[in-house]
Amino acid sequence: MKRSALTLLSSALFAGLIGCQQTPVKDAHQEVSQQLQQQALQSTLAFDIVESLTVEVGPRLPGSKQDLMAVKWAEDKLNSLGFDKVYKEPVKVPVWQRGEARARVVSPYPQPIVITALGGSVATPAAGISAPIVQFADLAALEQADRQQVEGKIVFIDHRTPRFKTGKGYGQTVGGRSKGAVAAAKKGAVAIVIRSIGTDHDRMAHTGMMRYQEGVTKIPAAAMSAPDADLLGLMLKRDPHVVLQLHMSPTNLGYATSYNVIAEVTGSSKRDEVVLIGAHLDSWDEGTGAIDDGAGVAIVATAGHLISQLPTKPARTVRVVLYAAEEIGLIGGKTYAREHQQELAKHYIAAESDFGAGRIYQIDFNVAADAFHSVQHLTQSMQANGVAAGNNNASGGPDVSMLPGYGVPVASLRQDGSDYFDYHHTPNDTLDKIDPKALAQNVAAYAQFAYLMAQSDIPLRPVDTSK
Amino acid sequence: MKRSALTLLSSALFAGLIGCQQTPVKDAHQEVSQQLQQQALQSTLAFDIVESLTVEVGPRLPGSKQDLMAVKWAEDKLNSLGFDKVYKEPVKVPVWQRGEARARVVSPYPQPIVITALGGSVATPAAGISAPIVQFADLAALEQADRQQVEGKIVFIDHRTPRFKTGKGYGQTVGGRSKGAVAAAKKGAVAIVIRSIGTDHDRMAHTGMMRYQEGVTKIPAAAMSAPDADLLGLMLKRDPHVVLQLHMSPTNLGYATSYNVIAEVTGSSKRDEVVLIGAHLDSWDEGTGAIDDGAGVAIVATAGHLISQLPTKPARTVRVVLYAAEEIGLIGGKTYAREHQQELAKHYIAAESDFGAGRIYQIDFNVAADAFHSVQHLTQSMQANGVAAGNNNASGGPDVSMLPGYGVPVASLRQDGSDYFDYHHTPNDTLDKIDPKALAQNVAAYAQFAYLMAQSDIPLRPVDTSK
Repeated sequence: MKRSALTLLSSALFAGLIGCQQTPVKDAHQEVSQQLQQQALQSTLAFDIVESLTVEVGPRLPGSKQDLMAVKWAEDKLNSLGFDKVYKEPVKVPVWQRGEARARVVSPYPQPIVITALGGSVATPAAGISAPIVQFADLAALEQADRQQVEGKIVFIDHRTPRFKTGKGYGQTVGGRSKGAVAAAKKGAVAIVIRSIGTDHDRMAHTGMMRYQEGVTKIPAAAMSAPDADLLGLMLKRDPHVVLQLHMSPTNLGYATSYNVIAEVTGSSKRDEVVLIGAHLDSWDEGTGAIDDGAGVAIVATAGHLISQLPTKPARTVRVVLYAAEEIGLIGGKTYAREHQQELAKHYIAAESDFGAGRIYQIDFNVAADAFHSVQHLTQSMQANGVAAGNNNASGGPDVSMLPGYGVPVASLRQDGSDYFDYHHTPNDTLDKIDPKALAQNVAAYAQFAYLMAQSDIPLRPVDTSK
Repeated sequence: MKRSALTLLSSALFAGLIGCQQTPVKDAHQEVSQQLQQQALQSTLAFDIVESLTVEVGPRLPGSKQDLMAVKWAEDKLNSLGFDKVYKEPVKVPVWQRGEARARVVSPYPQPIVITALGGSVATPAAGISAPIVQFADLAALEQADRQQVEGKIVFIDHRTPRFKTGKGYGQTVGGRSKGAVAAAKKGAVAIVIRSIGTDHDRMAHTGMMRYQEGVTKIPAAAMSAPDADLLGLMLKRDPHVVLQLHMSPTNLGYATSYNVIAEVTGSSKRDEVVLIGAHLDSWDEGTGAIDDGAGVAIVATAGHLISQLPTKPARTVRVVLYAAEEIGLIGGKTYAREHQQELAKHYIAAESDFGAGRIYQIDFNVAADAFHSVQHLTQSMQANGVAAGNNNASGGPDVSMLPGYGVPVASLRQDGSDYFDYHHTPNDTLDKIDPKALAQNVAAYAQFAYLMAQSDIPLRPVDTSK
């Protein structure tokens, strides 16, 4: 790939204009991209899509009957949207069923508390587990604890997730969910119940994946709601000997086949080169998977649809990938990377929408350092839609986060996630949490991004593979 | 009772000052009342009390083991607060146990929905009930429906509760909860599931009492969360034939004895005359009964405590009544009225705090028309605490609402209930929903009110018994 004269010219212009980002870049591609922006902002299609998915399918745990219904739904929906190609690719997924999860304080102040099993957790014995709880401020405190503090007890990690627009509070606390059971079991704990990884004060617990480790006892793992964590904390202030009883009956059901569902707008002149926009089709099972990730599915499907309706198709192929089994370990994303390895050299750039439906306020990239300013310039018209130029440290989103390791450039279209972790992985992940106007703003950003990338003449490689 | 010279004088002053409500009324009682206001605003006692009740007892369904623990808790707490007398009076209460409640859409779009049993509901058969649903906009629409529309179906009343500061939206919709099962059963319905009577969009259902009628088949009655009502509505738009399956296992366990718990600051000169400030001790079982009505318990107990600590006790007895079994039909309130009937002529005035912990913005009365301006004048100093003068149409609160029928004057200290019905009767009724400062403002208002009424020389009778 070589830079075209036009790109060189606009880069030169950009060098002169840096710091004066209001000036519009004028060329035919920019005009089309701005039309896409306008069309997207006026369209209600994305909301209709996420409504359709949540109403007609609902929750879709990987490998479940409803997950396969979602695959069928996705094929039908994408076929109805004017893509040139719709197909699916098998993904082997472990199947986990939630069962029941109940907990109550046995003493000193008997009362029920609200918990939910963490994804992948084993069950308690049928008679339940009763044991004193031991409270830790965070995962690090548990890891530093003496075995005698923990042995025979139920570990309670009481780590509050702070609220940030970027959602970075989640990264600060989620280790307790994913690694807590192993750390607790290594010190002889009989179970673990964490304060939910969430920013709300609703009496509903946040589920999410946890992991076991070969050779370490598998102990049941659950999360309690924030009000329940407060309650236990206040009990412990009165009496350090608080006994909890847990009953949990999740089951691991082996493996099943799910699918990545893929739709394409075939490129007009570089059809073997791919601009990938993705989202994940699976969801947790207590909500209807509206913000996580019905919104993303709707955003990228609608963006692809708008591009498919253009009178002249862009140069590269725009590929919409609806990944399987993101929630339980990015399985669809890893499978895609493995199965498409030969083709990844032709992946121009990739981005995934998986952070709800809040407005996109910034676009970050992970592209070659000397291409960064050029792509910022190229995507400058996104600013009219509220999307500011960002940094060159993007991960791209969970299911494409492994692609830079294969040399593929990525972008992160940063959404306002201020309330995302209020609802994430809870029964509250429902359609009413989505603002249709914010959703349309996302579609506009993805449509512009995908179109401009599919037309771009800027060489984006090599990327920093360490990001 | 005759008006004292002082009262006549201040009434005369008031007549001249009407429309100029900033001018403070100066007398010894007003000074004490203002001191109480200041003490209350600086005290954290009320928050400590509601914390203690929710942490050490938690949910307390009438007649349950925890209800009796709450009675013991209340006696101990009131005894520790310096009252002159603490005692309890038996109340016969029906005992209802929640059991399980599950629901799922069987067709056309199989997925679970979130419901809760309404208080008093019978169970479904163990195998559950499966039937098509029939949607009505409100109770009136159901009552007007043809039997053939309803027979053999599950009635779905889809009436949204609007949000108001006064909470009046509840009154507009709660008929569907209390009377829906009878109306539905009369037309041959097999069950009823209503949109929750609540103003939130959380995926948790609001419970609350429902009633059966002698001679009408008792059908299971439940509420679904707002997002689930939205979901069913969107399914019905796609396909009018939506089949729901319900499993509910509540049980009616006969009768038990609970107690009204009562504490008094004995009056100094008119000890047989009573100023009653009340709240209810029982709660629904899915939250911890913080806003409904732990807050009220804490407010009136703390107000009484502050009055008990005065160097000179007020003339009349201030009686704090913590009622049993309000939630299931004002049973404690009705029992009190019946058992104290001989004494009600000596009840100077009564008020109940049972609307959460939002700030009090207005005080309304139900007193003799010619006393109304005088009591407004007497309570004028409450304005410095944000409590404006209101109207003469007060009900007094649920457990005292029957007292005007016996000639007893009442007052309603109106709280800002804008978010009350977000949490009311749900798992979300927990301590974190209470703002300690707003709670203290309530205490200040009740302490001033009770003190001024206990010292007042204004004859408040006869009241309008029709209110």
